[in-house]
Amino acid sequence: MKVKLQDGTEKHYRTVWMKESNVYMIDQRLLPHRFRILRCKTHLDTVEAIKNMAIRGAGAIGAAAGYAMCQAALEARDISNGQSRITESRDWFGHIIIAEKTIKKARPTAQNLFYAVDRVYKAMCGDQDLKRITEQAVKEAEAIADEDAASCKRIGELGNDLIRDGMRILTHCNAGWLAFVDYGSALSPIYAAKEAGKNVFVYADETRPRLQGANLTAWELLNEGIEHRVIPDNVAGALMKQGKIDMVIVGSDRIAANGDVANKIGTYTKAVLAKENSIPFYVAAPTSTIDPACKSGDLIPIEERNEDEVRWIAGVTKSGRRMEVRVTPEGSHALNIAFDVTPAELVAGIITETGIYKAEDIIHALE
Amino acid sequence: MKVKLQDGTEKHYRTVWMKESNVYMIDQRLLPHRFRILRCKTHLDTVEAIKNMAIRGAGAIGAAAGYAMCQAALEARDISNGQSRITESRDWFGHIIIAEKTIKKARPTAQNLFYAVDRVYKAMCGDQDLKRITEQAVKEAEAIADEDAASCKRIGELGNDLIRDGMRILTHCNAGWLAFVDYGSALSPIYAAKEAGKNVFVYADETRPRLQGANLTAWELLNEGIEHRVIPDNVAGALMKQGKIDMVIVGSDRIAANGDVANKIGTYTKAVLAKENSIPFYVAAPTSTIDPACKSGDLIPIEERNEDEVRWIAGVTKSGRRMEVRVTPEGSHALNIAFDVTPAELVAGIITETGIYKAEDIIHALE
Repeated sequence: MKVKLQDGTEKHYRTVWMKESNVYMIDQRLLPHRFRILRCKTHLDTVEAIKNMAIRGAGAIGAAAGYAMCQAALEARDISNGQSRITESRDWFGHIIIAEKTIKKARPTAQNLFYAVDRVYKAMCGDQDLKRITEQAVKEAEAIADEDAASCKRIGELGNDLIRDGMRILTHCNAGWLAFVDYGSALSPIYAAKEAGKNVFVYADETRPRLQGANLTAWELLNEGIEHRVIPDNVAGALMKQGKIDMVIVGSDRIAANGDVANKIGTYTKAVLAKENSIPFYVAAPTSTIDPACKSGDLIPIEERNEDEVRWIAGVTKSGRRMEVRVTPEGSHALNIAFDVTPAELVAGIITETGIYKAEDIIHALE
Repeated sequence: MKVKLQDGTEKHYRTVWMKESNVYMIDQRLLPHRFRILRCKTHLDTVEAIKNMAIRGAGAIGAAAGYAMCQAALEARDISNGQSRITESRDWFGHIIIAEKTIKKARPTAQNLFYAVDRVYKAMCGDQDLKRITEQAVKEAEAIADEDAASCKRIGELGNDLIRDGMRILTHCNAGWLAFVDYGSALSPIYAAKEAGKNVFVYADETRPRLQGANLTAWELLNEGIEHRVIPDNVAGALMKQGKIDMVIVGSDRIAANGDVANKIGTYTKAVLAKENSIPFYVAAPTSTIDPACKSGDLIPIEERNEDEVRWIAGVTKSGRRMEVRVTPEGSHALNIAFDVTPAELVAGIITETGIYKAEDIIHALE
C-alpha cells in the first residue's frame, strides 16, 4: 500500500520481501515516527525480527517465517558447498531441521507462522538436489506472500459489502497491511469501501501495551487519507453505549476449528461490549489463519511477553528523539498477556478470501 | 496513609491540607517517580492545580475546592482591609461570588467539588463580619476534609466484610487515598482487609490516558505492601474469562439519584465484562458523591479533555528524567473522553459510609 515518504513523494511497499539471500521488512518498531527498511541477512536475523516485533501481525509473521525457511535452505546450500559454517548442525540437512524448529519457536500464537514454515518445508522435501530444494523453497515462500496479499485484497472486496456509506467502524490493534504482506485483513474492507467512494470513519483503539493502533493503524489510515480518531482502549465502550459505533472489525492470529478467535489482548473485551450494545462484531482473516487441528479456543497457546512492555512506553520526544519512559513505580510488577480468545458466539461473521462465514461454520472456509 | 520517603523513613500524609492561607497538596502529576508537596498561595493557584490534575480524584478535588473557598474568603478579608488587590471584583463580596463560580468551573464531573463549594459558601452566609466569615469558612472546609477521611475509613470497614481471604480484586483508575483526603474509596476496603490479616491480591488497570492506575494505585499499593500487578486496560477481560478475578471495586465521581455511576473512562467496560463473567462489580464512594438533583446518568456532564493527553505519555527515562513521548503519528487526532456512566443494573452494590446499598436504592444513603 501507499507510504508517504519524508520528501513528499508516495511509494508502494509490501511489508516484507526477499531479494537474493536477504529478507527486507519495514521496521515496525520505529513507526509512525520513522520509516526504515530492515535487512535480515540470515534466518536467525529474521527470527530475531519476528521475536522483537520489528515485524508483527499474523500474515506478515507468516510471510517472514516462510522467507526465513528459504534463508535456511540457502545457508544449507552454502554449508554443503563449504562456503559457510553458520550452523549449529554438522550438515546441511541438520541445519534446515534445526532452523525449522527455531523459526517455529519465534512466537507461539499466530497460526500463519506454522502454516508458512510447514508449507515451505513440505515444498523442500522429496528432493536431494540442494539447488532445486532452494529454488522450491523460494518459489513456495513467494507463493505464500503473494497468496497472502491476494487473500487480503479479496477480503477487502467481500468485506466492503458489509460497509454502508457513513459508517463509523471500530478496530483494535493493527490488522492493516503492515500486519500482512499487503492490504491487511480488518482494514482491507475499509480501504475497499473508501476506494468505492463510501465515507468511512475509523475509531482506532491505541492497543496497549505495544500501541499498534496508535502507532501503526493511525499511520496507515493517515497514508490512505481515511478520517479517524485514536482512542484509548477504555473509550470504545462509552462510544458504543452512545450509539457512535456502527460496526467492529478486527483481525485474528489464530482461528480454532469451532470458530473461537485468538487476537490481540483486548479483542474479547470489545466483542463483549459489542454484544451488550447490539453492534455487529466481525473478524477478518485469510484462511491461512484457521487451525483445523485446534478444536477450540481454550487450546490456542497464548503468549505472555515481558512485563517491561507494560512498564515502559516508547515514543518520540518533542525534539523528535526516540525514547522510552517508565510509567510504573520501581518495585511494581506488571502482567503482559499478548492475546485473548473471543468465543465464536460473540462473532457476527468471519470475512475470509473464500467468503463470509458464521464463526461456527469457519471450517467450511477450508473446503 | 503511609508514604515511604526516599531516605527510607515512613511518614503519614493527607492528600491535601491547609495552613494559614496556603493550600498544600501532594503533586500527583509527579508520582510515582517523585514525591513533592505543592503549595497553592491563592484560590486561583488551587483552581489551577485542580484543572491541571496536580490534584485529582473526587474527594480530593472536593476538599481542595473547599479550601479554595477559604482562600477566597481570606483574600476578601485582605481586600476589605486594603491589604490586597488580587480580585476581578471591586469589593470583597464580589470577590467571593466570582471565586465561587471560578472554583466550580475547574472541572465539571466530580460531584464532590460542587458539594464542598456549596457547603463552605453556605457556612459563610448570614454574617457580615469578615473575620467570623473566614473562620466559618475554614471550619467548614476542615470539617469537609475530616468527614471525607472519616467516611473513607468507614467505607473500608464496611467493604472489608465483602472481601474473603485470598480474593483477587480488580480496580480501575485510582480511587485510593490520593483520590480523597485519606484512606480512599475503592482501595479502602482492601486496606482494611489487609489490616484484618486477609490475603488480598490486586489487579490495577493502568487506566489510559492519564495512567492513574500505573502511576498512583501501584504507588499506594507498594507503600502499603499489598501484592499487585499493573495490567493494561485490555487485560482484565481475559483474566475474568479465565476465572482469575473474584471481584471488581471502583470509585465514582458522581452518582445519579437512580444509581447510575459516573467514573473514569473504561469503568463501564469493566462493568459489562463483570456481568458477562458473573463477577460482582462494586462501587465505593462517600455519600458526598451522590447528586440527588441528577435523576439519571445521562444527565451527568462528562468532561472531554485535550487530545494531547492521549497523544503524549509522561514517564521517566532510564536516567530518571521526567519526559513526555508522543505515540501517535503527527497528523492523527485523538479523542479524550474522561468519564463514562455505568448503569445501575450493572452494579452489585454501592459501598458508602452509611452502609452498602443496591444501586437503585442509593438515594436512601442520604436519609
